[in-house]
Amino acid sequence: MTLPTSVRIREVGAREGFQTLQTVVSTAQKLELIAALSETGVREIEITAMVRADKVPQMSDAEEVIRQFVRKPGVRYTALYLNPRGFVRAEETNRLDNEGWLYGAVSETFLKKNANVSVAESIQAIPEWLTAFASRGKKPQGLMLSTAFGCNYEGSFPDSKVLQVIRSSIEKVEQAGSQLPEVCLADTMGRATPEMLKRLVGAVRAQFPSLYVSLHLHDTRGSGMANVYAGLEMGVDCFDTSVGGMGGCPFAKGAAGNVCSEDVAYLCEEMGIATNVNLDAYCRAARLAERIVGTPLPGKLYKSCT
Amino acid sequence: MTLPTSVRIREVGAREGFQTLQTVVSTAQKLELIAALSETGVREIEITAMVRADKVPQMSDAEEVIRQFVRKPGVRYTALYLNPRGFVRAEETNRLDNEGWLYGAVSETFLKKNANVSVAESIQAIPEWLTAFASRGKKPQGLMLSTAFGCNYEGSFPDSKVLQVIRSSIEKVEQAGSQLPEVCLADTMGRATPEMLKRLVGAVRAQFPSLYVSLHLHDTRGSGMANVYAGLEMGVDCFDTSVGGMGGCPFAKGAAGNVCSEDVAYLCEEMGIATNVNLDAYCRAARLAERIVGTPLPGKLYKSCT
Repeated sequence: MTLPTSVRIREVGAREGFQTLQTVVSTAQKLELIAALSETGVREIEITAMVRADKVPQMSDAEEVIRQFVRKPGVRYTALYLNPRGFVRAEETNRLDNEGWLYGAVSETFLKKNANVSVAESIQAIPEWLTAFASRGKKPQGLMLSTAFGCNYEGSFPDSKVLQVIRSSIEKVEQAGSQLPEVCLADTMGRATPEMLKRLVGAVRAQFPSLYVSLHLHDTRGSGMANVYAGLEMGVDCFDTSVGGMGGCPFAKGAAGNVCSEDVAYLCEEMGIATNVNLDAYCRAARLAERIVGTPLPGKLYKSCT
Repeated sequence: MTLPTSVRIREVGAREGFQTLQTVVSTAQKLELIAALSETGVREIEITAMVRADKVPQMSDAEEVIRQFVRKPGVRYTALYLNPRGFVRAEETNRLDNEGWLYGAVSETFLKKNANVSVAESIQAIPEWLTAFASRGKKPQGLMLSTAFGCNYEGSFPDSKVLQVIRSSIEKVEQAGSQLPEVCLADTMGRATPEMLKRLVGAVRAQFPSLYVSLHLHDTRGSGMANVYAGLEMGVDCFDTSVGGMGGCPFAKGAAGNVCSEDVAYLCEEMGIATNVNLDAYCRAARLAERIVGTPLPGKLYKSCT
């Protein structure tokens, strides 16, 4: 096991961090946070989500955010989408750098709640995704696989079940004459442990040697940073993270954010792993996020003396 | 590297968690938390500290807490002390299960602030410690070594400097015809990284093969749980932890608590490592601690659905 020499941080705080808030965050505040994040050196920022405004009111200004954010050269700005319609909606803004990401999950219950489809339906829909990507001249980049480490509704999954969803997705992409370069294993409910993570990452690589594995980790039960380190030990060099660890709501039972961007970056940098981010600038962005949210965020570094 | 099969949790929240609070916690509230912790299955609880009331007002009721707490069979109750006088003061209550712990540090600046002695003086004082232990029929158990992973005042230390403090302490104990069984490496300022921790634990064991190594970790910069996992990977099976991750003050710059007891226990149990604690009971104790402190604590598990 060798640590990577550099790590890519994909910042999702402006999307994932805001989406579950009870209080309304103004478009101006979102733009201010995106601007602050643009100054951190991070190269990928997910700025909003193409989801139904009646389901996620916090994202009802998605097009407005996309229209108004100020682009920093060298930074990729993206929006989340959960179906081909959302991808096209994002593309129609002509202001984003979205890649072709499929969205799926291992948990039937969660996928039904989150994207209103079954696992089989989500795989059957892959040709429709690919058509949407092609209509914008894009190739499939990856599969965002939610609940890869288990689910509060359905418990833990055997690795074989996770591998089967990945295998079916790859086959469906290949049947359409294309390739799937990446899978992002998402610990949506924060149920992973370091040992489980190492085992699953190892199993995915053993089965699909050409597949690039990235991680999207939540800190619901306090194991998030241990899981980041386990990922690093496996050589994983790409993590979705959230400024200040925002996400979920500190007062809502069961909700918790992604692992904290600047805490992950600090961990990496202190171990000699380059992240390209400026920790001071990231801590400033976290303090801004705290002011916007109005309550201390889970992140530690921005509250420390560093 | 093999994970341990079981882990000892030494609960320090009732001492370390309260000592830096700005608000006064009543003796009754402290006793209530100690009682809740006694129901978790944890076998070692540090309940207060024998320190100067003018320096740490929160600990001015130490003797009162010791006099009143209700003992649960099978649980060891201890108090922190930083000098032989404190040890004797604790012993004179005749209600504690203290072992003979030496207190030291690697950082001159920190040790001066915390215990008002130099590193050399702390080592020179070891015969005095041993005399105090012997006066109560106790042998030396360990050296609590603060700032083993660096210090905000002095930066990082080479492993050789840490090893030298341990070596000098061991020699001093042995010159008095006794043995030092344990060193607890304390990351007082939360500066450790998993790689640094593995390297130092490995170096200590290589130099002192018969010395038992335990860990006291803080989560100041978000690396605490990654460091716990790194310790487990090194086979470390004893950690000082704090209920709810309490300690420091969420609104005080630079202060942060120990790694969170129930989050550490959850991490261990989910990986098949026995801790003897009941997670539900620990989460109840954390929620009680939150009510006493009056603000959300850093711990994650007690806020999750689990």
